[in-house]
Amino acid sequence: MDLSKLGEFGLISRFQSRLKYRSSQVIQGIGDDCAVLSLNNGNYQVLTTDALVETVHFNLKTHTPEQLGWKTMAVNISDIAAMGAQPKFAVLSVGIPNSVAVDFLDRFYKGVNQASQKYKVALVGGDTVSSPKHLFINLALLGETRKKRVFTRSGARPGDKIFVTGTLGDSAFGLKILKSRRKKWAGSEIHKKQCVLRHLKPEPRVEAASWLAKSKHRVTSMIDISDGLTQDLGHILKAGKVGAELWESDIPISESLLKSSVINGLSALPLALSGGEDYELLFTLAPEDVTNLEKESITKVDQPVTQIGVITARKGIRLISKNGRSKMLQRPMGFNHFKGKA
Amino acid sequence: MDLSKLGEFGLISRFQSRLKYRSSQVIQGIGDDCAVLSLNNGNYQVLTTDALVETVHFNLKTHTPEQLGWKTMAVNISDIAAMGAQPKFAVLSVGIPNSVAVDFLDRFYKGVNQASQKYKVALVGGDTVSSPKHLFINLALLGETRKKRVFTRSGARPGDKIFVTGTLGDSAFGLKILKSRRKKWAGSEIHKKQCVLRHLKPEPRVEAASWLAKSKHRVTSMIDISDGLTQDLGHILKAGKVGAELWESDIPISESLLKSSVINGLSALPLALSGGEDYELLFTLAPEDVTNLEKESITKVDQPVTQIGVITARKGIRLISKNGRSKMLQRPMGFNHFKGKA
Repeated sequence: MDLSKLGEFGLISRFQSRLKYRSSQVIQGIGDDCAVLSLNNGNYQVLTTDALVETVHFNLKTHTPEQLGWKTMAVNISDIAAMGAQPKFAVLSVGIPNSVAVDFLDRFYKGVNQASQKYKVALVGGDTVSSPKHLFINLALLGETRKKRVFTRSGARPGDKIFVTGTLGDSAFGLKILKSRRKKWAGSEIHKKQCVLRHLKPEPRVEAASWLAKSKHRVTSMIDISDGLTQDLGHILKAGKVGAELWESDIPISESLLKSSVINGLSALPLALSGGEDYELLFTLAPEDVTNLEKESITKVDQPVTQIGVITARKGIRLISKNGRSKMLQRPMGFNHFKGKA
Repeated sequence: MDLSKLGEFGLISRFQSRLKYRSSQVIQGIGDDCAVLSLNNGNYQVLTTDALVETVHFNLKTHTPEQLGWKTMAVNISDIAAMGAQPKFAVLSVGIPNSVAVDFLDRFYKGVNQASQKYKVALVGGDTVSSPKHLFINLALLGETRKKRVFTRSGARPGDKIFVTGTLGDSAFGLKILKSRRKKWAGSEIHKKQCVLRHLKPEPRVEAASWLAKSKHRVTSMIDISDGLTQDLGHILKAGKVGAELWESDIPISESLLKSSVINGLSALPLALSGGEDYELLFTLAPEDVTNLEKESITKVDQPVTQIGVITARKGIRLISKNGRSKMLQRPMGFNHFKGKA
């Protein structure tokens, strides 16, 4: 059996099917942004974990220690937000190689602290160990929902509207810039900096998620976009056994990305469709729900949301281009951790 | 600032003092085996995390994948037990290098599954990522207490009796055997095997902890022994601002370790005092409590416990030798993750 063929998700479902101990308190186990746990006080808890590995998820040349600390918290907080929950308590493990000094750690923890303060997450413990060569970081984060309201990946039905918060692709373009330091990218420095910042210091959409959780809107599914729009939409489609139609002209692309990409002869669309690390929320809304969610989200939480398509009974993702042509997207591609592994 | 001088605990308290966001729901934050969280259902929750790193915590030549999976769960379960709590839900991160194949992972998850089943822990999520060179594993584990009863490191008072479950030092001797495969160790194969197994497949004392949590015994502090008796006792003494007297002749040493050490010209005592990875419970009991805890623990949970000394007002650890002489132990030594680091 080849790990590159099995892939991350294959490996996970392989193990999931072999689990021997199951608890009736587990509402949602392996396979969503967070696990959902039922306690006897009527609320649900959500639990998630994310590992960040040097050379795989980050590079000490591109991320400052503060940004790395912030990002460690932010990516986990985003998973909690995607369930419509509030992040509460975190435990942090750090594997520290010889090359990392106390000053680096001070700055790393400063970034952790900043995110912890902004998103009201109490860091309550952790494990600090040595690592033979590479820095690795793991955060586990516990959150709470309002009553039993929780958004999962499953639940999207044909006709549901597909929404996304914010803009897509900035982070992927920012990463491109970071990875090619010697290349001179044309265009506005401010625009480029904004894209880079979206990659280095993502802002999870806790407030927007919390507003939707408190609202009466019939959110039928939700996920955060970490692996890219099409791959993460793919998870919603798989869970709901449905397909989707995406409207190219409605995919929200920031002015920064649009102008920077045009001037550099790049296409922004692939970055928005599969770039990843956007940490925006992707969610579906029942068709009979409000028609002015875009306005309401600005008023209530100052957060743009955009309808980018609809859920279809027909499987797969069809992209409707600006000239009205329909194109079936290839099997959603995103980051595969085990590409080329035997 | 030198990381080797600061050490793991120095680093933790350095960061702890700088924490900016604190929540009133946190009963115990950084600095115990687990964090203690207060929910509005009257129970407490405990949360812990432990990272295991190849070459630092384990070696793929000495641990089978199954044993590694088991140990990953067991070391975290032991932290939960040390709070007098029940382990409930776990999330597991694995960083997988190229050299690790699917068969290895299957066997690793089998070990995880075995411990999960034995200790009734539901594995509810995780993160599976690639790692550039070394395998690393991180588990975060959530547990629940009965009502608000929780055992922490602080609370030991002069006159309190010091108890330990099981026997000490077997694991450290087992590790010695594993590390020196070419050396021919004298003595009974069964004895040696038992010590090796204590290292490879530790059995956290959940049942004993649960019995004490349900009982009326006045447990004043508790910790699990992972870094060695004197180092972990040191945490209790520091938290309670007290000292201890340990009785050499009462330190419980298994027949396996005793016979194996004698025949190999080794002293068992240092292994029992500072070997580590025993995963036994170390706890203190108010002086007016029962005098026959040793018998009761056998009857109730078939678990030997032994009084090994008393808490003193005088700081430090004094060891009373078999001939009645008293010796001040050096500053408790245990595993330092950052020895020799700059």
